[in-house]
Amino acid sequence: MKKKKPLPPGFVFVSTNCRIKGTGKDDLGLILSQYPAVAAAAYTTNRVKAAPLLVTREHLRNSRARAIITNSGNANACTGIKGLADARQTAALVGAAFGLAPQNVVVASTGVIGHLLPMDKIEKGIRQLAAKKGSRSLLPVAKAIMTTDTFPKTASRTCIIGNKKVTLAGMAKGSGMIAPNMATMLSYIITDAAINGPLLRKALRASITQSYNMVTVDGDTSTNDMVACMANHQAGNPLIKKPGKHFSQFQQALDAVTLDLAKMIARDGEGATKLVEVKVINAKNRIQADTVAKAIANSNLVKTAIFGRDPNWGRIICAAGYSGVPIIPEKCALHLNRMKLFDKGLPVKYNKKQAIKKLGGDTVYILLNLNMGKAIGLAYTCDFSYDYVRINAEYTT
Amino acid sequence: MKKKKPLPPGFVFVSTNCRIKGTGKDDLGLILSQYPAVAAAAYTTNRVKAAPLLVTREHLRNSRARAIITNSGNANACTGIKGLADARQTAALVGAAFGLAPQNVVVASTGVIGHLLPMDKIEKGIRQLAAKKGSRSLLPVAKAIMTTDTFPKTASRTCIIGNKKVTLAGMAKGSGMIAPNMATMLSYIITDAAINGPLLRKALRASITQSYNMVTVDGDTSTNDMVACMANHQAGNPLIKKPGKHFSQFQQALDAVTLDLAKMIARDGEGATKLVEVKVINAKNRIQADTVAKAIANSNLVKTAIFGRDPNWGRIICAAGYSGVPIIPEKCALHLNRMKLFDKGLPVKYNKKQAIKKLGGDTVYILLNLNMGKAIGLAYTCDFSYDYVRINAEYTT
Repeated sequence: MKKKKPLPPGFVFVSTNCRIKGTGKDDLGLILSQYPAVAAAAYTTNRVKAAPLLVTREHLRNSRARAIITNSGNANACTGIKGLADARQTAALVGAAFGLAPQNVVVASTGVIGHLLPMDKIEKGIRQLAAKKGSRSLLPVAKAIMTTDTFPKTASRTCIIGNKKVTLAGMAKGSGMIAPNMATMLSYIITDAAINGPLLRKALRASITQSYNMVTVDGDTSTNDMVACMANHQAGNPLIKKPGKHFSQFQQALDAVTLDLAKMIARDGEGATKLVEVKVINAKNRIQADTVAKAIANSNLVKTAIFGRDPNWGRIICAAGYSGVPIIPEKCALHLNRMKLFDKGLPVKYNKKQAIKKLGGDTVYILLNLNMGKAIGLAYTCDFSYDYVRINAEYTT
Repeated sequence: MKKKKPLPPGFVFVSTNCRIKGTGKDDLGLILSQYPAVAAAAYTTNRVKAAPLLVTREHLRNSRARAIITNSGNANACTGIKGLADARQTAALVGAAFGLAPQNVVVASTGVIGHLLPMDKIEKGIRQLAAKKGSRSLLPVAKAIMTTDTFPKTASRTCIIGNKKVTLAGMAKGSGMIAPNMATMLSYIITDAAINGPLLRKALRASITQSYNMVTVDGDTSTNDMVACMANHQAGNPLIKKPGKHFSQFQQALDAVTLDLAKMIARDGEGATKLVEVKVINAKNRIQADTVAKAIANSNLVKTAIFGRDPNWGRIICAAGYSGVPIIPEKCALHLNRMKLFDKGLPVKYNKKQAIKKLGGDTVYILLNLNMGKAIGLAYTCDFSYDYVRINAEYTT
């Protein structure tokens, strides 16, 4: 039996099947904070932003939230003024059902683009949620936001801040339309930490740059990416209101939670059979390290080779070469699963049988040493299989 | 029977099987100009440039060439100093066999990265080429440079410059590791035009921006991309030595040849079942139009949907949204195969059955109107099928 993951007090979770997806599975979920909570969110960098993101951005102007309502099966994106009205109405319905101000409700959606939300189903679903007893587990909501995900994604950490135990827990959905340079995919994080709005926002922004923004499944940045975080101040730690030791402790725990979730998203990319970690070391600076790591992680050719257990390292060097970073091949060394395949611009003799065997594991490690400086970049992706094509050729029809 | 394509005088073509690939098919080809020719080339923008490109760049400093020697099955990339020596030796062997200065030989390779060229086979192959009678057809060489291409790619045009008929003919290979922002993939163009070196270079550079650089199969820019052009001045047209009417006439014919070849490369992308033309109109400027068109053409999600005959237009709008261009969804209109699916930020009711049927054709037309200006951008790609994964999971092992 798995050890129960820690959960901050004061949050309940409830989900229901309101038949948006029509798969028989839950497609509407609510995270409710029993106490007033400070909240922050980050949004997709896509110019086409889904209606729920625009409404949530309005609602979080005062850095406060009490609930996150989230559905799968319909993205409420490219739906114009009616879409905006629907997202506002969703928040209003949650407010009425749970006795909250609508501005304290975060709204998020995921699913097909370009269809209006079935508001009759949403309304009925919210009534069902209100009639249910909330659970003290992330799982029902983590499952309700799944689309082509194959497993629910949750993570948590505790840390000590000013002698008080602080707990953070989070969930995410990923799978397809997953790419770097986004705010993030859907992810919700809750904590009992006492932290003010600006610092929570600061911690969240910093955290996604090393986690969600370093994940790619297919290079497509969604219209609906969003990460939202609620902090209900129940831990009793000294209020975090400026950078310093306490803020760093919180940041570290938050980073661990978002990185756990990011790796799960990469591992569960559409059609994925394994997680691929791309580490670029000794780059001139962090931006160049990240850029090279992302170019490799985004390469369809690298990812199909890994699916085929093919130690075709030339594709990795090729991707680094077109990343836009002025790498010097004669300085580079490449390791695949800790076997050196390329050094100083030249192929290295290696045991190909062993390399193929190692590619059969559930995680593949790519390590590229640029020998140009001291910066490190880490990106996460999955291999690229027939199932990616199957899933995405059949998604709406 | 197809009409014979025009061919400029003074060029012969010869190919042989020197067993680099071991498939029983020809893998070494030579284009020989019987007259001195002015030459120009463009190279991959990948920082990792294959040895033959570096050697060719040296050789073309004087804008002169008499032959192009080209092999498939081995890219001679990531092969260090020995690779450079091998490329130089290849030019020297051709020079000796055909009585040319080695500096007048263009060298190009395509195939697997990271293996040394089998110089014994190359040497024997060049002897075989010299013993053969040259052909007056592009086909033997166009076939010898194929890797996973399913058909040889040739195109030609004639134009009248100063009362003289000028002929241009070209060939290309494509298939995988094909992406924009490159110099180009392998392509050779020959013409009898009288044009000087700087103008030939200028025409070639301009031509690839609207053809090869607008093609993408998988977003991977190769280490070996190169286009080379030889002009043997046999047409008798007034020498083109400055921009003007004659130069424009030549440019127009060259653009037609490179665009023909570029579209063939897109249509024959690895695993492709159809050509996809992405046209972005009424953009603010050309760069923005091209950027949006390429983002759509590079989207795995758009391309798998087209493979699945799925009019999932939300993925097209999504890709435009993350292209980096500040599009305004409320101004956009999207047509798929001339059916309007999205207008002013909102879905349009359409006949889904008919849309699915139209996606069964061998060419798919995406037209996105940004309504922000007057610029047009055109990109070319293919759909994304199971076979892309199969081909690339199995390429070297």
